[in-house]
Amino acid sequence: MATTTTDRVREILSWYGSDSPGTLTNLSRMLNAGTLGGTGKMVILPVDQGFEHGPGRSFAKNPAGYDPRYHFQLAIESGCNAYAAPLGFLEAGAREFAGQIPLILKLNNHDVLYEEKDPEQAVTGSVRDALRLGCVAIGYTIYPGSSARLEMFSTLRALGEEAKANGLVVVVWSYPRGSGLSKEGETGIDVTAYAAHIAAQLGAHIVKVKLPSAHLEQAPAKKVYETEKVPVGTLAERVRHVVQSTFAGRRVVIFSGGPAVGDDQVFDEVRAIRDGGGFGSIIGRNSFQRKNPEALKFLATVMAIYNGTQK
Amino acid sequence: MATTTTDRVREILSWYGSDSPGTLTNLSRMLNAGTLGGTGKMVILPVDQGFEHGPGRSFAKNPAGYDPRYHFQLAIESGCNAYAAPLGFLEAGAREFAGQIPLILKLNNHDVLYEEKDPEQAVTGSVRDALRLGCVAIGYTIYPGSSARLEMFSTLRALGEEAKANGLVVVVWSYPRGSGLSKEGETGIDVTAYAAHIAAQLGAHIVKVKLPSAHLEQAPAKKVYETEKVPVGTLAERVRHVVQSTFAGRRVVIFSGGPAVGDDQVFDEVRAIRDGGGFGSIIGRNSFQRKNPEALKFLATVMAIYNGTQK
Amino acid sequence: MATTTTDRVREILSWYGSDSPGTLTNLSRMLNAGTLGGTGKMVILPVDQGFEHGPGRSFAKNPAGYDPRYHFQLAIESGCNAYAAPLGFLEAGAREFAGQIPLILKLNNHDVLYEEKDPEQAVTGSVRDALRLGCVAIGYTIYPGSSARLEMFSTLRALGEEAKANGLVVVVWSYPRGSGLSKEGETGIDVTAYAAHIAAQLGAHIVKVKLPSAHLEQAPAKKVYETEKVPVGTLAERVRHVVQSTFAGRRVVIFSGGPAVGDDQVFDEVRAIRDGGGFGSIIGRNSFQRKNPEALKFLATVMAIYNGTQK
Amino acid sequence: MATTTTDRVREILSWYGSDSPGTLTNLSRMLNAGTLGGTGKMVILPVDQGFEHGPGRSFAKNPAGYDPRYHFQLAIESGCNAYAAPLGFLEAGAREFAGQIPLILKLNNHDVLYEEKDPEQAVTGSVRDALRLGCVAIGYTIYPGSSARLEMFSTLRALGEEAKANGLVVVVWSYPRGSGLSKEGETGIDVTAYAAHIAAQLGAHIVKVKLPSAHLEQAPAKKVYETEKVPVGTLAERVRHVVQSTFAGRRVVIFSGGPAVGDDQVFDEVRAIRDGGGFGSIIGRNSFQRKNPEALKFLATVMAIYNGTQK
Amino acid sequence: MATTTTDRVREILSWYGSDSPGTLTNLSRMLNAGTLGGTGKMVILPVDQGFEHGPGRSFAKNPAGYDPRYHFQLAIESGCNAYAAPLGFLEAGAREFAGQIPLILKLNNHDVLYEEKDPEQAVTGSVRDALRLGCVAIGYTIYPGSSARLEMFSTLRALGEEAKANGLVVVVWSYPRGSGLSKEGETGIDVTAYAAHIAAQLGAHIVKVKLPSAHLEQAPAKKVYETEKVPVGTLAERVRHVVQSTFAGRRVVIFSGGPAVGDDQVFDEVRAIRDGGGFGSIIGRNSFQRKNPEALKFLATVMAIYNGTQK
Repeated sequence: MATTTTDRVREILSWYGSDSPGTLTNLSRMLNAGTLGGTGKMVILPVDQGFEHGPGRSFAKNPAGYDPRYHFQLAIESGCNAYAAPLGFLEAGAREFAGQIPLILKLNNHDVLYEEKDPEQAVTGSVRDALRLGCVAIGYTIYPGSSARLEMFSTLRALGEEAKANGLVVVVWSYPRGSGLSKEGETGIDVTAYAAHIAAQLGAHIVKVKLPSAHLEQAPAKKVYETEKVPVGTLAERVRHVVQSTFAGRRVVIFSGGPAVGDDQVFDEVRAIRDGGGFGSIIGRNSFQRKNPEALKFLATVMAIYNGTQK
Repeated sequence: MATTTTDRVREILSWYGSDSPGTLTNLSRMLNAGTLGGTGKMVILPVDQGFEHGPGRSFAKNPAGYDPRYHFQLAIESGCNAYAAPLGFLEAGAREFAGQIPLILKLNNHDVLYEEKDPEQAVTGSVRDALRLGCVAIGYTIYPGSSARLEMFSTLRALGEEAKANGLVVVVWSYPRGSGLSKEGETGIDVTAYAAHIAAQLGAHIVKVKLPSAHLEQAPAKKVYETEKVPVGTLAERVRHVVQSTFAGRRVVIFSGGPAVGDDQVFDEVRAIRDGGGFGSIIGRNSFQRKNPEALKFLATVMAIYNGTQK
Repeated sequence: MATTTTDRVREILSWYGSDSPGTLTNLSRMLNAGTLGGTGKMVILPVDQGFEHGPGRSFAKNPAGYDPRYHFQLAIESGCNAYAAPLGFLEAGAREFAGQIPLILKLNNHDVLYEEKDPEQAVTGSVRDALRLGCVAIGYTIYPGSSARLEMFSTLRALGEEAKANGLVVVVWSYPRGSGLSKEGETGIDVTAYAAHIAAQLGAHIVKVKLPSAHLEQAPAKKVYETEKVPVGTLAERVRHVVQSTFAGRRVVIFSGGPAVGDDQVFDEVRAIRDGGGFGSIIGRNSFQRKNPEALKFLATVMAIYNGTQK
Repeated sequence: MATTTTDRVREILSWYGSDSPGTLTNLSRMLNAGTLGGTGKMVILPVDQGFEHGPGRSFAKNPAGYDPRYHFQLAIESGCNAYAAPLGFLEAGAREFAGQIPLILKLNNHDVLYEEKDPEQAVTGSVRDALRLGCVAIGYTIYPGSSARLEMFSTLRALGEEAKANGLVVVVWSYPRGSGLSKEGETGIDVTAYAAHIAAQLGAHIVKVKLPSAHLEQAPAKKVYETEKVPVGTLAERVRHVVQSTFAGRRVVIFSGGPAVGDDQVFDEVRAIRDGGGFGSIIGRNSFQRKNPEALKFLATVMAIYNGTQK
Repeated sequence: MATTTTDRVREILSWYGSDSPGTLTNLSRMLNAGTLGGTGKMVILPVDQGFEHGPGRSFAKNPAGYDPRYHFQLAIESGCNAYAAPLGFLEAGAREFAGQIPLILKLNNHDVLYEEKDPEQAVTGSVRDALRLGCVAIGYTIYPGSSARLEMFSTLRALGEEAKANGLVVVVWSYPRGSGLSKEGETGIDVTAYAAHIAAQLGAHIVKVKLPSAHLEQAPAKKVYETEKVPVGTLAERVRHVVQSTFAGRRVVIFSGGPAVGDDQVFDEVRAIRDGGGFGSIIGRNSFQRKNPEALKFLATVMAIYNGTQK
């Protein structure tokens, strides 16, 4: 990993004044790794699709992905800032690829062999697991909008405290879902901004949300957005509002794609994230479900847009 | 912080004979801080609206408030006795503003992306968090009237015991809510006095309730209030009854506003709190949703009413 | 506290052969305190009505009772054996009145802002709290008849074990209530005797029940009471049966009043407790809801009936 | 207690090869105690009826039984191998009768002031309690057939592990009950054998079941019993099948009576237990609900049948 | 146990790079034991049928099986790689057969005296139990498809972490079941592959699933399998797909039979497992419900197919 750093990374680290040097060290490792190292932008490869949707739906398109080592290699070769996966996938490569890329151990997971109206996740890993596997961070998903959310928040709190006490970074996937929301509302801009804010209030260092639509879900919120003329018309404006909602940009917020149809649309989304002041992307299926050369090219383009070498 | 104290502060501290010198030290820090330092009156700035209602509804009116540092500065510049917020907001400024204002870490929170008939809150912080962030107190909300109340009381008990053992002050937000009560009953005088009493019995050093209405919710209580002619006709009388109900005034009780329409109404409420023997106000949205100069002026007026420099 | 003791107290202590000298010391403190000290009879002042019914219903009749110090003073001046209250009320006077009267910390409580078909209570204090406040005993309520009873029994078990390991006495309020019983059945003689027996089996040193009626609630019990001609016609006989049901009188059983209309009726009840071999009374509302001189006179009469100076 | 032992006791101890010498010592104390000491047969006096059915239904027939000391004396004088009771009853005599009879602390209990479709029990004692009271064993009830059974199994597992680690014996009352079974099915031979097997698999050293009827409850089991011609026509055959089902007789299985009408029927049942290879009886109500001389005579006859001095 | 090893065993061990030498030692003990020792193939004897279906249904066909020692002997004599059973069965033979065959302690179990729509299991043993009984592994069942699955996953996580920290192997029985699935879906190829993948992601070293049918249960999965032309027409192809879904063959996956009618069909299934790259079989009822000589012959044939001495 990089032994020097940049002003931008130093600036980002300065936002986390309550964290230990240990946690800042691990956060800087993520910010300094890969193609975007030092730029303050990040692209993370997450591979929990096998758990979330099943192995066939995840890897049949590019069967190399059945092998857990494939994703370590893809993340390293493509120059990602970090690779995130559940316990089993990380255990299957952590020794072979030790020290080659920052790792995020996803501490909870959900599957679809049973589907709930108000989903929650199983805790599938521990802070101690993250430490023994050499990870820089833990990852945790919350479902604002679900009746199970309060318990998820409380569990995150406990895991986050333990992670910070051990010098790890806390990455939170904040996915609105459940009977409190309409389907459209799950990605509404008011809901997305709210979900990002909750994650930050729960102590997340890095927040991950979906790209928001212009939909406004909750009536009292809609009224304020309209009265105060909060600009949410374009995707870049919505990204900007989410970043603003996450402690005025003083927490790292990254985005996953909406239902992108083609690469050009993905690249446009990346431009909107960049223009809106977002900190980067987390790209799973769009990466590992392609053949390797295409995936590398695709990710290189994404990174080029972020670091300014491509418009 | 003040290094000398006043007779009134000493008197207040004398009510807490079962607490350690450590807790009294932190309580005196709150009582001696800010414009009202030493008067025995308090104005506290709480900013958990982002979590409770979402960032847009909370900060769009005064976008400076998206930045967690804004609220530290507002609390300090306006001369508040303390600033209360959830984990994320405190982590984002505790180092920069270390030692400049007493901090209260709110240990539980609720959001409105899912709404329950019988609400409860997620535990979002710990006593250990409060200690590492340099706080003087923990804050905790209970919902008397909710079917989840017993569990909330029990959790508060455990957190309160740990807080006291570590020399922290315990501040309890007691908000009647849930299927045990009518909407009007949530702020009825019998219910409010009861809610304040429960908080004190649970070991709170400082109790926070809403300003009560003259409504009497529960039939057996109504009968006693009428038979015994408990004076609850004016707001000041109701404040006095709440103070009386909280160990005959030997616990600090502060109030948040009702649905105030204009500033004059708020000032009248403050006068009623003062005249009824209340110990002060906790003022969130009415402070941070204004532009900074207006907020400072508004809070200065509130404090002037409390310390007698304004009628 | 008394430094000599009586044969009767020594006899009572002899029933608790599995307890430590520490617990016996605290039990003897209760038995040797106050007007009835040394007689083996007890009158205890309990003040948890503020939590259970609200402050207005509890203290409006005698507003001096809003002040937690009032009850310490009443218990001391009236010569009670002990004073029992929740955490807040004890914290508010434990230093001022340290060593003047044995204290019982009530470790669980219930309020009526929400009412359940099958009630339970919140745990509101700990054994450690009891120790730091200088108490001689913990108090705990169980609701036989409620679907929540098994969990209440199990929690009592754990708290009782901890209390005994720390030399404290365990006092159990056993109040039949919940969907397993008819309203009348809550005080039926079969149910009351059963409730007292359960408390003793759970390891209580002192059991508190309500005065039973002659009603027989459960059919299989009714059959046995009738077949075996268990005498339960008079109140004294019913008291005797409850005492018998509590380890043949080898556990201290005290009683609270039924819906007494006038003082004479209360005194008659006390005579029945005395004549039936009961160990005393626990008298709350009938004490602290009177003006002080009346309360002292009333309690003096109760104690005089117990120690034989009055018929 | 006996300081020499017999071949039969040594043989029984040999079945418990995974247990510590501490546990074997306590098991041998039970096997060597009383009239049947050394024979490998056991008669145990259990007195938890007061908790399970109430004191009146339990003790009114023979009021001496209200006194907890009565049961210690009865067990000792009648020559039982052990006495089993809940916490309160054991605490009330453990010092007075220390060392005179092996004690089993029943760690969970159920009452009938509330009755559930799917019953469970409250945990009412601990391994630590058993140790401080000088017990040789813990007792624990499970209800196979109840929806609460899995939690009961898991709790037994934890208590059993702790008991074994402290050198205690684990006695399991396995009582099929709950909505998974018909009333008749609760004592069906397939269900009884299954219940005994589960207890043994959960690590019980001694298993207690009810005497089974010839009823076959579950269709798939019925089919096998009929196809394989498992002999279950006589009570002795059914006992033999239960013993076989409990690790081919390598675990001690004892029986409680069915709804016996007269003594002769009980004695016939004892003969069937003996002839079927059962290890003994646990006899509660039939013992302590008689006047003392009758009880001693009754138990002497039972023991005489077991040790062969009476047919 | 074998003191030399083979290239194939070394290769398999190399897949578990995040495990301690202690765990690898125990895994190699299983791989090197018995007839198939060193081949990388395994046959395991599991006997939890007594708990799962009752003793009569399990052992009446071959009554020798009532004796727990029978299964130790059968596993040893037949040359199995390991013997798996619940606590009671292992305790009953662990000393007598110490060191003669690798043991797997099954840490959770289910019975059928109560049947749930969404099943779960009771925890019936601990890692500490496994260690004191000399086991090489813990076994744990999960039910993907049940509403109780998340809790089962989380419990497995905790037990697995403790097992690994103590040098034990983690074997997971992954049995899709519950209201999320149709009856046919429980063994559908998409569901089986998914279930195996979840177990591996949860950190299992060895995964046990049922032989899958060609049924495709979930519409989104069906679409992918058809679009991507995943070959699942033959049993060998389906085995291959399950192995692929379990980290591209880098986790040991073993299979239990479908509803086999005759031995020839079982042998055909074993051939399919072998041809599809599966690692072996776990064979319970088909082994211990036969007379001993037949069972030995049957298992010898199975092993011969695996090690290539028989086609």
